[in-house]
Amino acid sequence: MAVARLETPSRPDGRRERGRRTHREILSTAVDLGSREGLEALTIGRLAASAGVSKSGLFAHFENKQELQLATIAAARVIFVREVIQPASAAEEGLPRLRATLAAWLDYFRRDVFPGGCFFQAASLEFDGRPGPVRDSVLEVMGEWLAWLSELARQAGVGGSEPEQVAFEINAIGLATNWQRQLLGDERALARAEAAFERLVQTGGRVR
Amino acid sequence: MAVARLETPSRPDGRRERGRRTHREILSTAVDLGSREGLEALTIGRLAASAGVSKSGLFAHFENKQELQLATIAAARVIFVREVIQPASAAEEGLPRLRATLAAWLDYFRRDVFPGGCFFQAASLEFDGRPGPVRDSVLEVMGEWLAWLSELARQAGVGGSEPEQVAFEINAIGLATNWQRQLLGDERALARAEAAFERLVQTGGRVR
Repeated sequence: MAVARLETPSRPDGRRERGRRTHREILSTAVDLGSREGLEALTIGRLAASAGVSKSGLFAHFENKQELQLATIAAARVIFVREVIQPASAAEEGLPRLRATLAAWLDYFRRDVFPGGCFFQAASLEFDGRPGPVRDSVLEVMGEWLAWLSELARQAGVGGSEPEQVAFEINAIGLATNWQRQLLGDERALARAEAAFERLVQTGGRVR
Repeated sequence: MAVARLETPSRPDGRRERGRRTHREILSTAVDLGSREGLEALTIGRLAASAGVSKSGLFAHFENKQELQLATIAAARVIFVREVIQPASAAEEGLPRLRATLAAWLDYFRRDVFPGGCFFQAASLEFDGRPGPVRDSVLEVMGEWLAWLSELARQAGVGGSEPEQVAFEINAIGLATNWQRQLLGDERALARAEAAFERLVQTGGRVR
């Protein structure tokens, strides 16, 4: 779904490739702006100025603000999959893949893949109280992520009959890492997250 | 500091009490609105409409948007202290007080003390990329909270020489609880948080 959204509608030949490139560049700017200032700051006018495109040029790609917001979420999802999910898929199924995913996730924070911190955490908090298609889209991506973490925990045999508990706690550590780096500029959060992940993987969320 | 901010400047006698009451009512509306829609949505005009006060009446209390945002943060801090910190202060120092604080915190989420979810998590994410006095104020309150959790863990002997690690993980679980309830409407987050807190308190963040 997300990848399909990144394609432009068909156009006369030579211009098609240019149109696609412009579309990708606009979305890349939109993702950056969205991660720094929120999805509500993504007005057509504001984005046109940031991307160096005319407003009418931008309207050729996105009919309105909501369409732009949805396309930006889809583009951010593609980036997250590429940076966190795919690198870990080379690791062996089970504990190695769970560990590789957690390492890739911390690396994604460390490298500031989104300049304003995790795009999805910001979008979640921004839209949790605003029902509608944008909230639904953020919710869908977050549901996918939690389900994926549960599946990785289950494959790794971590958490026994409660892989969702492990997924909840892994996700919690990631949220706090992003929060503490972004708000408090506290880089120690990455080492704290590593220690917390290691304990979770070893104890599987069991109470002794 | 926060409590002082809730007081109005001195006024002629009879009107003083009325002025204070209006001030408190405005801030109460501001905290609700801020928790639901963010601190940037707190314009003088918007708040005047929600609080049923004229714009000029509102200007008598707050000179500009930033002053209003700072007063709103201070008012939210007073509420958080009253609902989470104070109830636990009756418990014996050490493990009982740590457990009582975590229970009060979960209860604060459960009762939706702020209608739009945790005021501070929303404000943190909204302002992490916007330097200035509002960000500094949110940062200060969050620093106080993390330091308080560390102190409680230290008093309880949880986490050994690393009470900050325990504070980091406790805070992470709280962030995720709020996030999961607000975004996904997932009430199981409260039970998951309880289980995670219990394991943290029992294992003290140690890797076996």
